[in-house]
Amino acid sequence: MAKVYLTRIEKFNAAHRLWVDEWSEEKNLEEFGKCANKNWHGHNYTLSVTVSGHPDPKTGFIVDVKKLSAIILSEVVDHLDHRNLNLDVPFTKGIMPTTENMVVVIWNQLVNRLPGCQLHCVRLQETDKIYAEYYGE
Amino acid sequence: MAKVYLTRIEKFNAAHRLWVDEWSEEKNLEEFGKCANKNWHGHNYTLSVTVSGHPDPKTGFIVDVKKLSAIILSEVVDHLDHRNLNLDVPFTKGIMPTTENMVVVIWNQLVNRLPGCQLHCVRLQETDKIYAEYYGE
Amino acid sequence: MAKVYLTRIEKFNAAHRLWVDEWSEEKNLEEFGKCANKNWHGHNYTLSVTVSGHPDPKTGFIVDVKKLSAIILSEVVDHLDHRNLNLDVPFTKGIMPTTENMVVVIWNQLVNRLPGCQLHCVRLQETDKIYAEYYGE
Amino acid sequence: MAKVYLTRIEKFNAAHRLWVDEWSEEKNLEEFGKCANKNWHGHNYTLSVTVSGHPDPKTGFIVDVKKLSAIILSEVVDHLDHRNLNLDVPFTKGIMPTTENMVVVIWNQLVNRLPGCQLHCVRLQETDKIYAEYYGE
Amino acid sequence: MAKVYLTRIEKFNAAHRLWVDEWSEEKNLEEFGKCANKNWHGHNYTLSVTVSGHPDPKTGFIVDVKKLSAIILSEVVDHLDHRNLNLDVPFTKGIMPTTENMVVVIWNQLVNRLPGCQLHCVRLQETDKIYAEYYGE
Amino acid sequence: MAKVYLTRIEKFNAAHRLWVDEWSEEKNLEEFGKCANKNWHGHNYTLSVTVSGHPDPKTGFIVDVKKLSAIILSEVVDHLDHRNLNLDVPFTKGIMPTTENMVVVIWNQLVNRLPGCQLHCVRLQETDKIYAEYYGE
Repeated sequence: MAKVYLTRIEKFNAAHRLWVDEWSEEKNLEEFGKCANKNWHGHNYTLSVTVSGHPDPKTGFIVDVKKLSAIILSEVVDHLDHRNLNLDVPFTKGIMPTTENMVVVIWNQLVNRLPGCQLHCVRLQETDKIYAEYYGE
Repeated sequence: MAKVYLTRIEKFNAAHRLWVDEWSEEKNLEEFGKCANKNWHGHNYTLSVTVSGHPDPKTGFIVDVKKLSAIILSEVVDHLDHRNLNLDVPFTKGIMPTTENMVVVIWNQLVNRLPGCQLHCVRLQETDKIYAEYYGE
Repeated sequence: MAKVYLTRIEKFNAAHRLWVDEWSEEKNLEEFGKCANKNWHGHNYTLSVTVSGHPDPKTGFIVDVKKLSAIILSEVVDHLDHRNLNLDVPFTKGIMPTTENMVVVIWNQLVNRLPGCQLHCVRLQETDKIYAEYYGE
Repeated sequence: MAKVYLTRIEKFNAAHRLWVDEWSEEKNLEEFGKCANKNWHGHNYTLSVTVSGHPDPKTGFIVDVKKLSAIILSEVVDHLDHRNLNLDVPFTKGIMPTTENMVVVIWNQLVNRLPGCQLHCVRLQETDKIYAEYYGE
Repeated sequence: MAKVYLTRIEKFNAAHRLWVDEWSEEKNLEEFGKCANKNWHGHNYTLSVTVSGHPDPKTGFIVDVKKLSAIILSEVVDHLDHRNLNLDVPFTKGIMPTTENMVVVIWNQLVNRLPGCQLHCVRLQETDKIYAEYYGE
Repeated sequence: MAKVYLTRIEKFNAAHRLWVDEWSEEKNLEEFGKCANKNWHGHNYTLSVTVSGHPDPKTGFIVDVKKLSAIILSEVVDHLDHRNLNLDVPFTKGIMPTTENMVVVIWNQLVNRLPGCQLHCVRLQETDKIYAEYYGE
């Protein structure tokens, strides 16, 4: 039986900043540069969720992609879209919202909520020049 | 000796629908939604074929990409382009043309026809939001 | 007062074929090539609708883009998405569904239904290599 | 002598919100939806600046694109990148930061600062689905 | 009768450099920077050719896009692809191969060779950040 | 501790040709086609460098992406951008500049120069239709 990987892509727009509370503003700016701007900045994020499984002999689906999309929206995107990642989102609060940390957090939101398929990879693209990936390892 | 992966991308446009013959129209619409439209719909498909091998010391090729492209066209794209995946194509007939099933079918078309390199991955993008991948496992 | 152009982009997937009923199959294939395939083919279409107007002094909107999007969906995209342009859509039936004709038909669907702004351009991209534009002239 | 249009594209990331101070939070949320989130959200903006002129017979330039880029950066992008458009930027403060208003503001920043060519169009893309254009009319 | 614009996109890869023979190497490097590298550099160019006309009542075409493509290839792309724009191409020889000059040269190659439609615009994209347009004015 | 992959994307433009010195011009043209053009051709290259590591508990970085970018620029891109890959670059001289060979060469430039993270993959895209990847195996 073939093992196939299926990826669904969703987008959201959010504000954030990189900032360590215990550090002075000077040290934050030194470490994070413009990303530490105290009045925030933001991004159009592109989220790619890859799952794996065996195509159903009848439907040809490893998962109904409409259901996969609905779960990504309800568990992740609806919480992050048009939000401030440092302030507004219970599951990102207290976590430095770098692309690296975000993929782990998003993985944890999804890993136990996928019907009949396995989460394989979470990829988050922050700009045209940066993306992070997490495989649950 | 370095093992390098080389990917060639080709495109095709096709019609299809998702439909199980043994099911009623109602059940098909319930399961597949708009994708079950009996008069078909279609997509611009983007096919990425990844092969692996060792660069030839003289030419620097793991495979001549013009030959790789010619094989992808003659074995896959020429059969699928401007066709109906449910009706017109011998190697997809009788197979539910989901993205998941299509990557397996395309893999089988290519796997024994590549000169001097190994098929590593077949990826098929159906829309901006969905793609499937198969590694022959 | 500044005149600003605002563009909203929406996508749909549809089947179609190019075919003149009065012509023989041979002549159709000669004229339209693979596009005349009798079992249809299809595309991922990208629709860009540009309107013009003066930004409201309070809201900064020439039109609320959520309302503009809702009109494009209800008047155009919902009718075309996952449909057969030759068979399924009242306002494209009997019209050869070339990209050139589609932009005129879509213009006519929208031109009298936009609230407080002017339709400027309808652009429809059929593949990575072809798009048409209509300005109502 | 040929009149040629040259476009330079630059990017920036910023936070903003849509909010009318004189309105209640309720009315702001009703009008602007998620865009009124009080803790901000943000975007990756793509700015396209088009100038026109006659190619110099010797250099073939209507303007040295490196100089054009330097002016776009110093007059616009350096002020907006990793900033809050409502709070941080002198020339956007007090202006509702919709895409429509932003293109007018950016036009005004550039129009008298271009060496030996004419500003023709400012385009700003806010998301994959929305952009605005201003031609100085 | 509706006036519709149709755009066909083709690509080519070429080498070039920016260099004025009468100038010293120093002055060339000062004016053109890295673009004056004496051993050349190159680009993937994207060429968009826009024509206008009235859709034929029977075919829905303002021009058969396959014929338009064939003309763009035979008159322009086949001469430029995998060539050196300074050395190899009769119609660009002696012309500084800036994007601005290239669109005029390409316009002149095409303007009298289009069957039953009018050339409206030639656009050439040199990098993700630069493109030029010419409308024959 | 989570293992996360971070990718940074940079671009450069270069000239090259495919040519084996010991072969006749005829044999070179037969083997490499237009890519053997003796006056060179060129490309816009897109380089994606993927590293892996554990996000720092305080900064959320597996590596400061600004530092990663600076290393990619100083060790790779500054040497290749606006250069001739056959003639100008010490670390590509004498190596056939196919995409396959380039990813190995770029890997070797980077592998011992990354601070506190591991090089995972070098990907180089030469055109919209071809890219190569190397994982150091």
